[in-house]
Amino acid sequence: MSVTTKKGDGGMSEYFGKKVSKGGKILEAVGTLDELQAVLGLVGLEKLQNDIYEIMGKKDILVKIENLENEINKLEKELKIENKFVIFKNEKATKLNWVRTVVRRAERRSTIFKDKNILIFLNRLSDFIYLLALKEEK
Amino acid sequence: MSVTTKKGDGGMSEYFGKKVSKGGKILEAVGTLDELQAVLGLVGLEKLQNDIYEIMGKKDILVKIENLENEINKLEKELKIENKFVIFKNEKATKLNWVRTVVRRAERRSTIFKDKNILIFLNRLSDFIYLLALKEEK
Amino acid sequence: MSVTTKKGDGGMSEYFGKKVSKGGKILEAVGTLDELQAVLGLVGLEKLQNDIYEIMGKKDILVKIENLENEINKLEKELKIENKFVIFKNEKATKLNWVRTVVRRAERRSTIFKDKNILIFLNRLSDFIYLLALKEEK
Repeated sequence: MSVTTKKGDGGMSEYFGKKVSKGGKILEAVGTLDELQAVLGLVGLEKLQNDIYEIMGKKDILVKIENLENEINKLEKELKIENKFVIFKNEKATKLNWVRTVVRRAERRSTIFKDKNILIFLNRLSDFIYLLALKEEK
Repeated sequence: MSVTTKKGDGGMSEYFGKKVSKGGKILEAVGTLDELQAVLGLVGLEKLQNDIYEIMGKKDILVKIENLENEINKLEKELKIENKFVIFKNEKATKLNWVRTVVRRAERRSTIFKDKNILIFLNRLSDFIYLLALKEEK
Repeated sequence: MSVTTKKGDGGMSEYFGKKVSKGGKILEAVGTLDELQAVLGLVGLEKLQNDIYEIMGKKDILVKIENLENEINKLEKELKIENKFVIFKNEKATKLNWVRTVVRRAERRSTIFKDKNILIFLNRLSDFIYLLALKEEK
């Protein structure tokens, strides 16, 4: 099989069997989620990459939100959270802080989806990654 | 000469001698192609950076598409392609996978251009970079 | 205190005490400035990260523009500037070149703000970072 389908050359693409515009809001959201899974890979968060793929397939979103909220609770007990902007200096923390902003971008783009649980997942994911950055910074 | 022209301070900019809005779709596409050449530089793909500059100048796009399709054919013969999401683990492969998603973003933005060959070039480029990532992963 | 407020789950968010749409242009600009401060952190430009936070708080923008213009003047005297595309090869320079394109993206998004000084600051910032890249490349 070939990776090149030539199907998208006319400016349209497929999403769940429907023709959608390549420059439209649905593919912008899908593409940003793809960018998000890629940057999660840059910081070694492979399980979350897989979660993004599953969320794009609308699979088990509520369970994934619950898992993230549990992780957030654990980290919040472990870390001292202050209500101010943090300038991270640790190298891994600076990378995680960047990944957090890509999560936020994916969240803004995902407002186009009817399923609001995707938004909630991404919102918790940015909190979780912020806490991971704080943990690295300590 | 100075790099600071102060021409763009009023929210307008120039594109091929025409005044265009800095917040508009043409400069969004041009800026994303600029971001693309920059991330190609992060993974050492200097020849492709130069191709992006030439494409922004509308130069030799058909030749560049043919070159990419030849490279894609070669890599497809060399590699085993599977029809599933790949979670890359090799460090260079994870970077290439990210660069691929920036190509995709540039492709979505470039739907604004009249010349559809730019879209075709970017579509083949994302296939090519995906195959480069697979090759590094092996 | 908890980082998770659950306030944004309905697709709205707060900006200077006003309710704004999470998928709208104001939060897109704010989020892109956040992404910019994060990538400034990836290349160790901590003072500029802090400047971005202060600019988001509309603090001392004119002073910051003047500081950047002074730095630009100094670098322009020190470096030989040529009127052509540069393909950077030095690793730090390639990163700075990428950061420059994120500044440009933040500039395009910031056309939504009433305060045009934000645009001027970002315009000078992209010039400054370009010169930093040239300096690393030498």
